[in-house]
Amino acid sequence: MSDAPPRSHGRLAISASIKPRELMDHNPRLKGAWTAKIVTLFPDAFPGTLGLSLTGKALDMGLWALETIDLRPFGEGRHRNVDDNPAGGGAGMVLRADVVAKALDQAAIGTPPDRTRWPVIYLSPRGKPFDQATARRLSQSDGITLLCGRFEGVDERVLEAYGVEEVSLGDFVLTGGEIAAQALIDATVRLIPRVLGNQASTEEESFSDGLLEHPQYTRPTVWEGRAIPEILQSGHHARIADWRRAEAERLTKERRPDLWRAWCATHSADPDEDREL
Amino acid sequence: MSDAPPRSHGRLAISASIKPRELMDHNPRLKGAWTAKIVTLFPDAFPGTLGLSLTGKALDMGLWALETIDLRPFGEGRHRNVDDNPAGGGAGMVLRADVVAKALDQAAIGTPPDRTRWPVIYLSPRGKPFDQATARRLSQSDGITLLCGRFEGVDERVLEAYGVEEVSLGDFVLTGGEIAAQALIDATVRLIPRVLGNQASTEEESFSDGLLEHPQYTRPTVWEGRAIPEILQSGHHARIADWRRAEAERLTKERRPDLWRAWCATHSADPDEDREL
Repeated sequence: MSDAPPRSHGRLAISASIKPRELMDHNPRLKGAWTAKIVTLFPDAFPGTLGLSLTGKALDMGLWALETIDLRPFGEGRHRNVDDNPAGGGAGMVLRADVVAKALDQAAIGTPPDRTRWPVIYLSPRGKPFDQATARRLSQSDGITLLCGRFEGVDERVLEAYGVEEVSLGDFVLTGGEIAAQALIDATVRLIPRVLGNQASTEEESFSDGLLEHPQYTRPTVWEGRAIPEILQSGHHARIADWRRAEAERLTKERRPDLWRAWCATHSADPDEDREL
Repeated sequence: MSDAPPRSHGRLAISASIKPRELMDHNPRLKGAWTAKIVTLFPDAFPGTLGLSLTGKALDMGLWALETIDLRPFGEGRHRNVDDNPAGGGAGMVLRADVVAKALDQAAIGTPPDRTRWPVIYLSPRGKPFDQATARRLSQSDGITLLCGRFEGVDERVLEAYGVEEVSLGDFVLTGGEIAAQALIDATVRLIPRVLGNQASTEEESFSDGLLEHPQYTRPTVWEGRAIPEILQSGHHARIADWRRAEAERLTKERRPDLWRAWCATHSADPDEDREL
């Protein structure tokens, strides 16, 4: 086990310890902010971009907290090896079940064992695709533990034994889970109350109603011979809303037939019919 | 216009300038490495995680290069405003076409105007979903320019006028495009020759053949009462390959019916039939 305490970001973060007082208290962290614990070989990657802009301000204000757990000290032997060759052969290296388990045990200190209250997630292209609904679910939990993979993957047994949920950022392969973790945390944290200055923003944007967002325009009214669509300057709020809805439907139909079919199914609309304004 | 030169990372990066010599030379950058130019309000977010691990080593070795173009100095007035209220009303702010255009002009210096050789990409949830095929296409270009959005979006006119391709990381909303840009760059850069130590790795993993990756195991042989599947320890390479293929098919069918149907269509297989080993 590591002697070094996990690195903490955010004022309300509580360093894990094994003092009896805290072991008896089931959820000390519950009193605090939503927390992301990250098991990683690259703790220096955090907070990274999450430390800037709105997420960074919210981190400073203690609206959420970030704690990294370096996987390396849990490694085996003098070189603290965390990985080994894949059983059955093949390229790359696989993170060891025993090493990962020790890091997850450390991350679990002070968190509820109920996985709905504190999901434990492995970021992997084999997982369920991350989407806005997942971000919303995670933002309503007490916090999450994220395991960032590297190399060829993680020994399957630790994923099974620890009830680890696999989540994929998309159908592409990254060198590691750290950037995926940041994307997942960013999308989640911004749904936590008070993180965004203007809550209205989260309601109007893409996906909150299942359609892509309509085009946006701002000053200047004419730029390089291109004018803002007249209707947006009409002041007729109802007609502007209709135009935006029609544009959102058109874009979704053109660019994302999959989302369009899903939207039509939930809105009893015919996906092949052109809607009239 | 900014007096400050764009920030460069990577040994082969060439700082943009408007010296006559360079204006006459169409593609000075072509002689160098694959380059990502990033237009952002948060240049400090880069290289971030991309500066660590394999991508960071490759950056240091000059196998690729990174250049940030701060959007702020192109802003209007004393406060260098880059955004304004959405035409037609609504929450949030929209990046101005004229401001973004000036930054894209700066980014274009030294790059080929052919968008297939140098794609210009706006990271937006309205875009085409990023996937491994897109990463492969981008890795075969000379480089890319990425526009990182913030707020409600970007004035549509600059996207039209500059032939900007919209790419989405997935069906979720981020506070800005910076983390999405890092994910896109990471997935792309690792496909550039010599960036990964072991090229075999990129061939075997998820998506390169349209299926999710089979489970992985490594030492110890038995962990917490759980043994590595016997076949992986048999030494029968053909049977191990069969088992892995069957597991990959099973996982894809269970977790990603969409990928499974696509795989069956290209392999003349019946998606509803259980395949035998």
